[in-house]
Amino acid sequence: MIGVDISQILGFVPQDRIDAFEPRVRDAIEQLEKGTGPGSDFTGWLDLASKTGRALLDEIKGVAKILRDNCDTVVVAGIGGSYLGSRAVIEAFQNSFSQLSDKGGNPVILFAGQNISEDYLFELGELLKTRRFGVINISKSGTTTETAIAFRVLKKQCEQQRGVEMARKVIVTVTDAEKGVARATATKEGYRTFVIPDNVGGRYSVLTPVGLLPIAVAGYDIDKLVEGAAAMESLTSSNVPFSKNPSAVYASARNALYQSGKKIEILVNFCPKLHFFSEWWKQLFGESEGKDGKGIYPSSVDFSTDLHSMGQWIQQGERIIFETVISVENVRHSYLVPFDDENLDGLNFMAGKHVDQVNKMAELGTRIAHVDGGVPNIRISVPELNEYWLGQLIYFFEKACGISGYLLGVNPFNQPGVEEYKKNMFALLGKPGYETESEAILSRIGK
Amino acid sequence: MIGVDISQILGFVPQDRIDAFEPRVRDAIEQLEKGTGPGSDFTGWLDLASKTGRALLDEIKGVAKILRDNCDTVVVAGIGGSYLGSRAVIEAFQNSFSQLSDKGGNPVILFAGQNISEDYLFELGELLKTRRFGVINISKSGTTTETAIAFRVLKKQCEQQRGVEMARKVIVTVTDAEKGVARATATKEGYRTFVIPDNVGGRYSVLTPVGLLPIAVAGYDIDKLVEGAAAMESLTSSNVPFSKNPSAVYASARNALYQSGKKIEILVNFCPKLHFFSEWWKQLFGESEGKDGKGIYPSSVDFSTDLHSMGQWIQQGERIIFETVISVENVRHSYLVPFDDENLDGLNFMAGKHVDQVNKMAELGTRIAHVDGGVPNIRISVPELNEYWLGQLIYFFEKACGISGYLLGVNPFNQPGVEEYKKNMFALLGKPGYETESEAILSRIGK
Repeated sequence: MIGVDISQILGFVPQDRIDAFEPRVRDAIEQLEKGTGPGSDFTGWLDLASKTGRALLDEIKGVAKILRDNCDTVVVAGIGGSYLGSRAVIEAFQNSFSQLSDKGGNPVILFAGQNISEDYLFELGELLKTRRFGVINISKSGTTTETAIAFRVLKKQCEQQRGVEMARKVIVTVTDAEKGVARATATKEGYRTFVIPDNVGGRYSVLTPVGLLPIAVAGYDIDKLVEGAAAMESLTSSNVPFSKNPSAVYASARNALYQSGKKIEILVNFCPKLHFFSEWWKQLFGESEGKDGKGIYPSSVDFSTDLHSMGQWIQQGERIIFETVISVENVRHSYLVPFDDENLDGLNFMAGKHVDQVNKMAELGTRIAHVDGGVPNIRISVPELNEYWLGQLIYFFEKACGISGYLLGVNPFNQPGVEEYKKNMFALLGKPGYETESEAILSRIGK
Repeated sequence: MIGVDISQILGFVPQDRIDAFEPRVRDAIEQLEKGTGPGSDFTGWLDLASKTGRALLDEIKGVAKILRDNCDTVVVAGIGGSYLGSRAVIEAFQNSFSQLSDKGGNPVILFAGQNISEDYLFELGELLKTRRFGVINISKSGTTTETAIAFRVLKKQCEQQRGVEMARKVIVTVTDAEKGVARATATKEGYRTFVIPDNVGGRYSVLTPVGLLPIAVAGYDIDKLVEGAAAMESLTSSNVPFSKNPSAVYASARNALYQSGKKIEILVNFCPKLHFFSEWWKQLFGESEGKDGKGIYPSSVDFSTDLHSMGQWIQQGERIIFETVISVENVRHSYLVPFDDENLDGLNFMAGKHVDQVNKMAELGTRIAHVDGGVPNIRISVPELNEYWLGQLIYFFEKACGISGYLLGVNPFNQPGVEEYKKNMFALLGKPGYETESEAILSRIGK
């Protein structure tokens, strides 16, 4: 089971302050389930996993097979919620050196449309000249600048390089059911498509085709992922008592810590493959809660790596932080610290131990050190990194985020602030329709 | 020139509050230069670049050539300051898809010894079975657990796979001049070695052989890197007036912001290749300033990527943050947004523009949006990402960090907090010499 241990925050906030959230948590879950809270148009993720039918999963696997059969490389074009979920899951499972290692028939998955870097696009284009590549274009509207530019160039290159017929086969679109230019392009070109449901926002979309298609193309078991999420739906529903509901406990603990002055939550792993899972988590919580001048600042570290960079600050800096550690109980491979006859490095005292045993002692030692240093510690334990447990973990955080946003008093399902830079950028670029804004911003910067 | 623009913080802290730091900055620079401040045993980085002789650079290049001639893959074993600097520089220059692309004769650079992940070590070992690999072992003492474990297994595998003679040729050690087990092993085995100077701490060591050797092996110009750093030495010395000294201005601006309640500094790039440069920066500032219950919390984002994850929080969350943007003026490659006859995606208004022009408008638009939203903005401009300018940028931050730590009133050159988790870990692992601590900690956790 996924466990949430809040014992190591109780020296900082008393248990009764956490328990005091119980009635508000009950209300929050009820609002979520009945659709009566702020942003309730975007709570489709709540029972998405349990409602995902065999037909959709089979269709995704079928299209994934076409891409796998016809491509050695698949480029996922998307930004924010349109790439973080699939990347988080794929990196959690794939070989640490996936681009150099034998991939056992799986295509290389690359990402594009998540930046506006000229060098990145140039280098991607050069690389793809040598690859039999396909594209998954993921965009609700099709007008997100980063992804639209990338898709425009990838489509052209794919058609030129592989021919229009094959391009039609290996370009797949995940977008709105009816609206938008990505849909229009797909219809015109005859691409295979999947729908992004209207009631699921980007950061909650990993268990829709947005995440599931790239994950299936990469060779991972989407049935198990969805099954794990569905199991966590039950484990966090309104029928479950407060203290047994891991999402409720986590949401309450972090809000209690926030109220006590802890402004920054650091998501910690001791497993480098979870690096991008933390990036996914940062979007989930940052975009859901960072509004109205409020919200815990989400940050992340990879330990023990970053104990040698951020470790000093965490141990002795301003006491405005707490840590949430994702602890994976079992590793996949077996590798022992070898014995050495000479023992010049003095490591023989750990010879014969699993490397992970040393890692676990680093984890425990760090926990004790940081709590001693004034950093409250929440520990989330996960049995192992496979599709089923990652599905559970994803839903655990999604549900916790919905509850937590309501406890904070914000709408956790909108993101009005994300539009601000886009408006300015379009005005600066002279996009048609932005003439007034363009004049205003150019005069403001003295141009 | 590297420019520091603080105009967009003046709506948050008045100019005179920044100027008021001038006498203290003068004292700080004098303390640094005369070695009279806290931690003055570790200020060897101050004039390291200008003092680096041709002989050392040539020796590094010579050893780099041996590795390049005999290896298709070089594993850099190190953690913290023993890997972040070289990784930051190498990733800034190398192809975005370096492991998949033609490397033009350069070896693949991999990193190890920066974690205690059993799966990572297992997968590395499997990969290396197919590679003609060498190892650069970087450790002041040789007893840092992460790196020592990795080096123990890499050394064995290299000897078994390539033979003891060849291993002697392709294993290089960067360590203390005399002390420590890494030195002892190198002496016994007859490895080539380089010295980590006693008066340069890990996070300031990128311009010693710690950083320079891996960078040279990767195929980059270390002469230019050092030349750039030496130029910045002059530009930030005590002879330069306060307002013309970029490190002084940056150090003062960030301390003024901290005093006004801004607790988090977000280092921003609009260039994905700078991702690891931000990681280097986080160690530099976090480890230097996060102590005595003080210090700005260093965080980083890659834009425009993370405008779609952390952007919402930055735009509208708690107003306890400021941004420092590294803006690279010129990109390396040329790639235009193509024209499209049908223009279904509506992007033709930017057709014919360099992708970087769009990126620059995203940058400017973001700056305006975030300042409007209450986020002070410091902008550091860099002409382009090459060895010379990156050398300047590295020294700019190092000098600013030394000054900033003195302004904050801490010793910016120690890191006492980093030892805490290690002590606990050794006690938990039953390391010889930790018997008392072991008993204490085991009884504390009820074992």
